[in-house]
Amino acid sequence: MTELLPFVAELPLVDHHCHGVVGRGVDRAGFERMLTEADTVSPLGTSLFDSLVGLAVRERCAPVLGLPKHAPVADYLDRRAELGAEEVNRRFLRATGTTDFLLDGGFLPDSLTSTGEFAALAGARAHDVVRLEQVAEDVVRAGTTAAGFAADFGAELGKRAANAVGLKSIAAYRVGLELSGERPSGAEVAEAAGRWLARVDGGAPVRLADEVLHRHLVFTGLDLGLPVQFHVGYGDSDVDLHRCDPLLLTGLLRATRGHGVPILLLHNYPFHRNAAYLAQVFEHVFVDAGLITHNAGFRAPAVLAEVLELVPFGKLLFSTDAFGLAELYHLGTALFRQGLSDFLRGALAADALSEVDAVRLARLAGHENAARIYRLESR
Amino acid sequence: MTELLPFVAELPLVDHHCHGVVGRGVDRAGFERMLTEADTVSPLGTSLFDSLVGLAVRERCAPVLGLPKHAPVADYLDRRAELGAEEVNRRFLRATGTTDFLLDGGFLPDSLTSTGEFAALAGARAHDVVRLEQVAEDVVRAGTTAAGFAADFGAELGKRAANAVGLKSIAAYRVGLELSGERPSGAEVAEAAGRWLARVDGGAPVRLADEVLHRHLVFTGLDLGLPVQFHVGYGDSDVDLHRCDPLLLTGLLRATRGHGVPILLLHNYPFHRNAAYLAQVFEHVFVDAGLITHNAGFRAPAVLAEVLELVPFGKLLFSTDAFGLAELYHLGTALFRQGLSDFLRGALAADALSEVDAVRLARLAGHENAARIYRLESR
Amino acid sequence: MTELLPFVAELPLVDHHCHGVVGRGVDRAGFERMLTEADTVSPLGTSLFDSLVGLAVRERCAPVLGLPKHAPVADYLDRRAELGAEEVNRRFLRATGTTDFLLDGGFLPDSLTSTGEFAALAGARAHDVVRLEQVAEDVVRAGTTAAGFAADFGAELGKRAANAVGLKSIAAYRVGLELSGERPSGAEVAEAAGRWLARVDGGAPVRLADEVLHRHLVFTGLDLGLPVQFHVGYGDSDVDLHRCDPLLLTGLLRATRGHGVPILLLHNYPFHRNAAYLAQVFEHVFVDAGLITHNAGFRAPAVLAEVLELVPFGKLLFSTDAFGLAELYHLGTALFRQGLSDFLRGALAADALSEVDAVRLARLAGHENAARIYRLESR
Repeated sequence: MTELLPFVAELPLVDHHCHGVVGRGVDRAGFERMLTEADTVSPLGTSLFDSLVGLAVRERCAPVLGLPKHAPVADYLDRRAELGAEEVNRRFLRATGTTDFLLDGGFLPDSLTSTGEFAALAGARAHDVVRLEQVAEDVVRAGTTAAGFAADFGAELGKRAANAVGLKSIAAYRVGLELSGERPSGAEVAEAAGRWLARVDGGAPVRLADEVLHRHLVFTGLDLGLPVQFHVGYGDSDVDLHRCDPLLLTGLLRATRGHGVPILLLHNYPFHRNAAYLAQVFEHVFVDAGLITHNAGFRAPAVLAEVLELVPFGKLLFSTDAFGLAELYHLGTALFRQGLSDFLRGALAADALSEVDAVRLARLAGHENAARIYRLESR
Repeated sequence: MTELLPFVAELPLVDHHCHGVVGRGVDRAGFERMLTEADTVSPLGTSLFDSLVGLAVRERCAPVLGLPKHAPVADYLDRRAELGAEEVNRRFLRATGTTDFLLDGGFLPDSLTSTGEFAALAGARAHDVVRLEQVAEDVVRAGTTAAGFAADFGAELGKRAANAVGLKSIAAYRVGLELSGERPSGAEVAEAAGRWLARVDGGAPVRLADEVLHRHLVFTGLDLGLPVQFHVGYGDSDVDLHRCDPLLLTGLLRATRGHGVPILLLHNYPFHRNAAYLAQVFEHVFVDAGLITHNAGFRAPAVLAEVLELVPFGKLLFSTDAFGLAELYHLGTALFRQGLSDFLRGALAADALSEVDAVRLARLAGHENAARIYRLESR
Repeated sequence: MTELLPFVAELPLVDHHCHGVVGRGVDRAGFERMLTEADTVSPLGTSLFDSLVGLAVRERCAPVLGLPKHAPVADYLDRRAELGAEEVNRRFLRATGTTDFLLDGGFLPDSLTSTGEFAALAGARAHDVVRLEQVAEDVVRAGTTAAGFAADFGAELGKRAANAVGLKSIAAYRVGLELSGERPSGAEVAEAAGRWLARVDGGAPVRLADEVLHRHLVFTGLDLGLPVQFHVGYGDSDVDLHRCDPLLLTGLLRATRGHGVPILLLHNYPFHRNAAYLAQVFEHVFVDAGLITHNAGFRAPAVLAEVLELVPFGKLLFSTDAFGLAELYHLGTALFRQGLSDFLRGALAADALSEVDAVRLARLAGHENAARIYRLESR
């Protein structure tokens, strides 16, 4: 790790995938619960602050709250409480240098800020990404039929996506990423919807987990021409990570390359090299390294360098995947800048690229690719 | 690679997974056979000394025997023979700075030192880890029935585990790690035991390889409240490595997180990032980077740094997985220190953590986690 | 990246897997199409020159054509056109320092130089590697029967392999690498051939994609005693990369280790650590890091270092997998030298090996292993 290159330090960023922040204060247990992908602190382990992201909070976030680097956890949390959630959120979000946040509001929306509140806190633009499965589940909750599901879903998605810049699939969390490349027929969709509705009628919670339907949602989303994001790889203990290798999407990617609609593979760790390969060989595939960037703390630059082996710079986007804690937006952003800067500085030192190119490529990854893909300039 | 940080050089270590040493001398062919996971030297390749672990022997072990660094192989083996096995073993084991060795005595026990002999050679404490499959196979050899297997195994395991600090499963070597999370019923166990006994009656060797039974062994072990180790990943040519990704254990880990009993994923290479993820999200999961540490020689610090991306420091343990050759305990230990020191030195140089924290985290990984998990202080 | 060690800069190389070059000029679209594994430039992304291999062309190839480092793409392509294909090809091939090229002539042979033309351009020796599937497809095109396929294939392969130094399987591209270890019986081969011939009779293109037949081809090849290369891992969008993990070959490798015939795992990225493991534990397995070496540009040394964790130096070979563009031979070679030099320089700086050993190991990987395995000295 070295000092940031000036043009990376000042690079405007588009965070193309994140969530809202928690508007209220949090205690230590609540903070640790949101710090990593662990649901809770282990009675057998030690504090989750004893991990790279925890060390990064104390290194990089403490100064934003007016504390010395590496302040003890208790001091940090006291100071956080003293400033209050709103001031803390404002400081961290504004420290990012992000001009546009793309918010997936589909997870625990009631406990997080709305898109409008977020924009005000951050002093930046915020855009909506619509979670496909949430729309489908709301359609089922509102009442539909096996035969009517496809039309009802289509209508509701059309409505909600009217002001959105993108869509998102969480198939990875529900059935894994081995989605077939074939668009399901109307009959198949109706049959799968019938199975789902029968389960719900039998008392099961309204939770979509059916390969045919996840696939139908994706194809319906592509029809709208909006970029479709996929959760890929690393996540919490709900995920069967061995079913979340992006290579499992190969068939679907091959089938959809002619649609001209961008598909964005989010997070990707520890399959980030596989994702970078897909971004190289499929015209419509783009990748980021969100979530791991803040989790890996000091090691984030090493992970980003692996992503950069194969991905063309025109196919790399920036995201934090921050959720809940304002610290995570700041860390995800600061560590992305660190990784990008370290990489480019190393290449410049080896005379492997010119400074003109370094500036140009940083701008692609930092915001130009996202602005182009999500058509942000026209908004 | 840099000079060791003083507090890492002097860190007391608990080697939570290793095996006995060979008490007699070994010739060159025998030495090479134990040096890596290859069964033997290839007539098509060159000497196994031409690998990073071989170079590490000549770099780091030669001086312990009073030879210059990088001594030729023939000189090294001559000097080893001249000193004699006992003196060689004593020197290397005592050079480790290890206070406690946890010995899996289940593989080729007749050719290796016993736990007591090992402790005397090393001038340290040595504890037993009981290999579940060995107990089951001994129960079958002693004579049991399909209906009686579960009870007979339970009784024998209780006896052998009475003085043990942990248990170990080698399901990876026999059926891979795709073990279901459901505890098998008594009827399922009896049926599986019947199949096994029939094979043995038909003349097959007494070798357990049945998903239901491996799973039954693990659940029986967890009942005892003793930490259960799993061989994961890298091993010799007997292993089907693509069936040994720790992510295949996700279902079992999800099912057992409420038991409060630690599960330890051993070795893990090349799936070490996957294992670190599991240690982050499951309360009872712990990992190490044994076996690869000495095999990767000069590159061990790079591998360890990858493990450290996600694993909380409270969930990382140290092991060598050394077997047979005394050199491997020394190398595994020295290269773990090197990796830990390089990592912390890099973080300190970047001001990514304080020295107080560096010392504290090193102690967790070096011995505190192991002492807590295996309750070594109470022994 | 550092200056090359003198003995690595001057190391004679055997490129044990590459293809012919395009003899005619290429325009920008054609150049980009051959630059990476993407079929074409994406209208959604930016130029493929905005990737590490593109930057490497401008850094390392521009000076060979008399341009300054980092010359703009347009200048580079203009200069390339001005010099003409033959001069460009000659310059790059002769800049490699390669003494022997092993050419797989099985892909798009009509658009590339022949082995003889290649040798003349390069001023070096060129040898043939015969693609097993191409022979089988030619046998079907020439007319055969289900019952006669095995004999016809055997006869044709014997003829074509008479002057070849090795064989190659592209099963990875057609059915993936999960090939069984059992040699198919004559009846199984006849049945599979019958299925294939029926498809062809029904109008399907003559394209082999049948696990039994790919396996039969490999066993027939091994009978000839010629080294058999396997495409593994990274390739273009035709490949189902999740079916190309070399670990899927474990059963076949276990079954063939007694044959005494070398098996060579090509490319391997992103499964290169898995391949290195196989090379350690199976006597007859060898690996390289071709294709990724030029694609990863500035990052090639980092990838090569990962391969070197487990592979014995007696089992590592050099290849470029260059195809079509003369630049790729130069880049693959220069970046292999860079990676090997960086690795050895790092080890020397840490005093992890002696300079005598460094020179010796570089020679093994650079040409001695290939010369031994392919028996090049006897030709």
